[in-house]
Amino acid sequence: MSHRSDTVHLPCGQMRGQGLGNQGTHTQPVEVMLHVKGTLEKHMVQLVAMRQQQDLVPEEQRRHQATGEQEALLDSLMYQLVNLLQSGAAGGLGLQPSCPSLDVRGVVGGGQRAQSSRWPDQPVHQRNDPEATFVSQHLSNRGIDISALFQASFQDYKLYQGDKYDEDKNTLGFINLGISENKLCLDLMTERLSQSDMNVIEDVLLQYPDWSGQPFLREEVARFLTYYCKAPARLDPENVVVLNGCCSVFSTLAMVLCDPGEAFLTPTPFYGGFAFSSHLYSKVELILVHLDSESTAAHPRLFQLTVDKLEQALLEATLTGKKVRGLILINPQNPLGDVYSRDSLKEYLEFAKRYSLHVIIDEIYMLSVFDESITFHSILSMESLPDPNRTHVIWGTSKDFGISGFRFGVLYTQNKKVASAVSSFGYLHGVSGIAQYKLYRLLRDREWIDRVYLPTYRSRLQRAHRYITKKLKALGISFLNRGSGLYVWINLKACLLRLWLSSVLRPSLLHRRFLDNKLILSRGKTYMCKEPGWFRVVFADKPLRLKQAMHRFYQVLETQKLELRVKQPESAQCE
Amino acid sequence: MSHRSDTVHLPCGQMRGQGLGNQGTHTQPVEVMLHVKGTLEKHMVQLVAMRQQQDLVPEEQRRHQATGEQEALLDSLMYQLVNLLQSGAAGGLGLQPSCPSLDVRGVVGGGQRAQSSRWPDQPVHQRNDPEATFVSQHLSNRGIDISALFQASFQDYKLYQGDKYDEDKNTLGFINLGISENKLCLDLMTERLSQSDMNVIEDVLLQYPDWSGQPFLREEVARFLTYYCKAPARLDPENVVVLNGCCSVFSTLAMVLCDPGEAFLTPTPFYGGFAFSSHLYSKVELILVHLDSESTAAHPRLFQLTVDKLEQALLEATLTGKKVRGLILINPQNPLGDVYSRDSLKEYLEFAKRYSLHVIIDEIYMLSVFDESITFHSILSMESLPDPNRTHVIWGTSKDFGISGFRFGVLYTQNKKVASAVSSFGYLHGVSGIAQYKLYRLLRDREWIDRVYLPTYRSRLQRAHRYITKKLKALGISFLNRGSGLYVWINLKACLLRLWLSSVLRPSLLHRRFLDNKLILSRGKTYMCKEPGWFRVVFADKPLRLKQAMHRFYQVLETQKLELRVKQPESAQCE
Repeated sequence: MSHRSDTVHLPCGQMRGQGLGNQGTHTQPVEVMLHVKGTLEKHMVQLVAMRQQQDLVPEEQRRHQATGEQEALLDSLMYQLVNLLQSGAAGGLGLQPSCPSLDVRGVVGGGQRAQSSRWPDQPVHQRNDPEATFVSQHLSNRGIDISALFQASFQDYKLYQGDKYDEDKNTLGFINLGISENKLCLDLMTERLSQSDMNVIEDVLLQYPDWSGQPFLREEVARFLTYYCKAPARLDPENVVVLNGCCSVFSTLAMVLCDPGEAFLTPTPFYGGFAFSSHLYSKVELILVHLDSESTAAHPRLFQLTVDKLEQALLEATLTGKKVRGLILINPQNPLGDVYSRDSLKEYLEFAKRYSLHVIIDEIYMLSVFDESITFHSILSMESLPDPNRTHVIWGTSKDFGISGFRFGVLYTQNKKVASAVSSFGYLHGVSGIAQYKLYRLLRDREWIDRVYLPTYRSRLQRAHRYITKKLKALGISFLNRGSGLYVWINLKACLLRLWLSSVLRPSLLHRRFLDNKLILSRGKTYMCKEPGWFRVVFADKPLRLKQAMHRFYQVLETQKLELRVKQPESAQCE
Repeated sequence: MSHRSDTVHLPCGQMRGQGLGNQGTHTQPVEVMLHVKGTLEKHMVQLVAMRQQQDLVPEEQRRHQATGEQEALLDSLMYQLVNLLQSGAAGGLGLQPSCPSLDVRGVVGGGQRAQSSRWPDQPVHQRNDPEATFVSQHLSNRGIDISALFQASFQDYKLYQGDKYDEDKNTLGFINLGISENKLCLDLMTERLSQSDMNVIEDVLLQYPDWSGQPFLREEVARFLTYYCKAPARLDPENVVVLNGCCSVFSTLAMVLCDPGEAFLTPTPFYGGFAFSSHLYSKVELILVHLDSESTAAHPRLFQLTVDKLEQALLEATLTGKKVRGLILINPQNPLGDVYSRDSLKEYLEFAKRYSLHVIIDEIYMLSVFDESITFHSILSMESLPDPNRTHVIWGTSKDFGISGFRFGVLYTQNKKVASAVSSFGYLHGVSGIAQYKLYRLLRDREWIDRVYLPTYRSRLQRAHRYITKKLKALGISFLNRGSGLYVWINLKACLLRLWLSSVLRPSLLHRRFLDNKLILSRGKTYMCKEPGWFRVVFADKPLRLKQAMHRFYQVLETQKLELRVKQPESAQCE
């Protein structure tokens, strides 16, 4: 088969003038195409041969390193091809570092990889990049690693930044339902932020700040959280630290709670931005606690986090010599949308206390619960925390207020030593004084928040959720309906089965097909989800854009059905 | 002498109602005073005994670790006492981690200490802090280290933040001539930033940014630098990376150019903020190249940086097995105020090229050259750089425009791999979108900058410089007159000789006396200056505040003369 290049079904075949992927293509040199095609074929053969052998051995052994390398290389090459076709770039292959995962917003390719500072199955700098030797003279080893990880993780995001969909100016641009961004109330926010009370310039805003955050803002944050988290007593501004984004808060917490190589328990699927952040500086290992994607008699609810699972993961990690320092929770959960009950929360916290584990709990979606039958319980609402000195809350305005561009994140902790240690990093993670002032004005305008913003936001969020779930139902796609967040966690396993490729590669291929149709979705892999086939779809966007996005989504699934019929005999040969 | 507590001259004696240091004192429990006093005495005795022994051995051996410990402990205790007296705090000793250096803005206690992740001569957490055992259960080792370093480095700054001088509301507050902040044109900046063109809110500013910095801002920065650096050709926006402050730029450069333990050559005296930054994340070692504070026949100019010195330092470092990856330059220099000639610059760059060293050059004071006879040469003005792929420029608006609160720093490098690797860290060092927009408007308003801002700024800077140097001359204090920067590098060695304490401790004591008089200056130690007695005095402040500051300065020196006469017999006993 290795020489049947004319008959090989290129995974990116859909780009050949179909859908929206046909702009600016067909101009790159034939030799580039042939090179990539040839390499693809060669690796496909190896891959299929390997899979056939592996079918004979148990499931665990299948995840062999060599397979991983083939997959990653294939993944990378496919992506190069997409980029070449889309950019119409000529001259030289110009290979990028490999891209094991290609979703947006600090997402890491596969849970296990997030754990090591250099992926053992990805020595691609040496292998693929003709500049590797030259580069290593200029960059440190960690510089090379981080750069490669960044390139891999943010490639979709970069595409999107350079070619955004606009209903007036760029109808062929990318629609991004991969990034968890709340675009529902930009009109309200723009109006509010343009009011005259926002535009105050004072000396204190132009000068070096308090590295914990400006006192006026920390006071306002404490008041805000006291009210919206229903705290039993006034929260203390001295327990608040303000940094430039929640990932900065997470990263600095990881620095001051763990030494390199120490670990956090991380129930997955789990927000990939924290994994990326932990890789940049802290080198903290994430021990993945994989939640079941299948319903069982004992646990009928999919992806149910239980203390049993946590105990088991802790035990296993400890047996392998890992020093586990904490547990990371996200509530409301990202990407599942789960809102933990008060009892569940308490169980998790008590488990952590039993083993002297810190708990980092990210409540960044706390005002984004749109199902009115569900009540969110902040841990700040608890009368008493099991282990207050080891309980640390993260919050910010990026999601609930849709202003991720502010770069604003908050730590709330009663542990003064932790607050102080995190503040030390304020020197390198400070927020502009004028932004701090605007945030202060925004958070203190409780009347506007309660009477204008939140009712509008929640109603729009509900409507968008209704729309997207209706569409999904019509397409027969199953999803979790958990009542919070900006996204829905969908199961495309059934669609994957229609693809001719091996099961592990299918999500990448499907993801690329969406990309070819200028639609960005994020794969389960981004969230370190064990089972392939899950995707996160963000719906917090304007109705028109959402409609257009769902049209593209539908197109991909439909084209696939068609291809399946046409290609079946050939793909059957490959299997 | 150990029991002669009634006759011991407490170094902080001046606080007893003299000058401005008498507010809020005298309320703390007697036992706290007695405890500190007793500890001070005990250590003074040990210190003197040690010094007497050391007088018999060669200079190099004098810098013995035990002495260092005594000094640091004494330093710390003295500072605790100052704080207690000033705060009037009651109950418990509540000792902070030790504070080997107590100046503002990310300053590190002594050059050598900046090099190790845990100071070998400072095991004070274990010894002094009653909470140490408890704390270590909550914080990681690096968390404890960094927190202690931050507390030590920023204690003055914290005092200042909590009690700032204000000509109307708080005339007894701290005046800070230690922090390099430009307060000369806050009126102009406030006016400009309040204009309507600044207050634009667009969707793109509220959403996740390009992690290299918003394209519109990077383009404007490239245009701005092309013009003000007199670049021979248009600078490329793709070579610009925007992060939240120049220390973030330096820190990320250190990450991507060096692996942990690798080193940069650092001519000293040198800006302490970079030393602090290198400690937080990158763990890069700074190899100090001590410049001569004395004039010699070969080098009549004080603190002259020569290639010979660089060669020598590189050779020594290499012989001890250090892997030196780069050279850090600051031009105009901080704290000396030197502006390098084009020839000197070229020599430094060629030296670096010979040894394949990166050059990081910080040009943050480029528009703050107030001596009209001096021309600043940006390395971006060179027709060709000796090693462009290893030459990286840092700039920001904190100093030249006096808006440090914006948290804005720029990297300019032709090395795309370095730019890309540094961008990866933009995820954790991003600037608020609205701040990026205002900076863009500011930098593009060339007419305002050239016709209004710069002429006013330079004229005020000149006037402030004239005022402070006139005062210094009147007091017979020598200083460097190098024509740039917001500060003057002064020599208080002669004043130190009047102090009864050992020569190494004298600058700390003098610094504390200024502090007692609510005046913050920064010691040479902060800049890793080898010779004690040098201080940096910032003069970029309003005339009234500067006048008040110099009055306090004068008071300290005068009181000292008086004390010298009174205490001479007793202090003679100590020596």
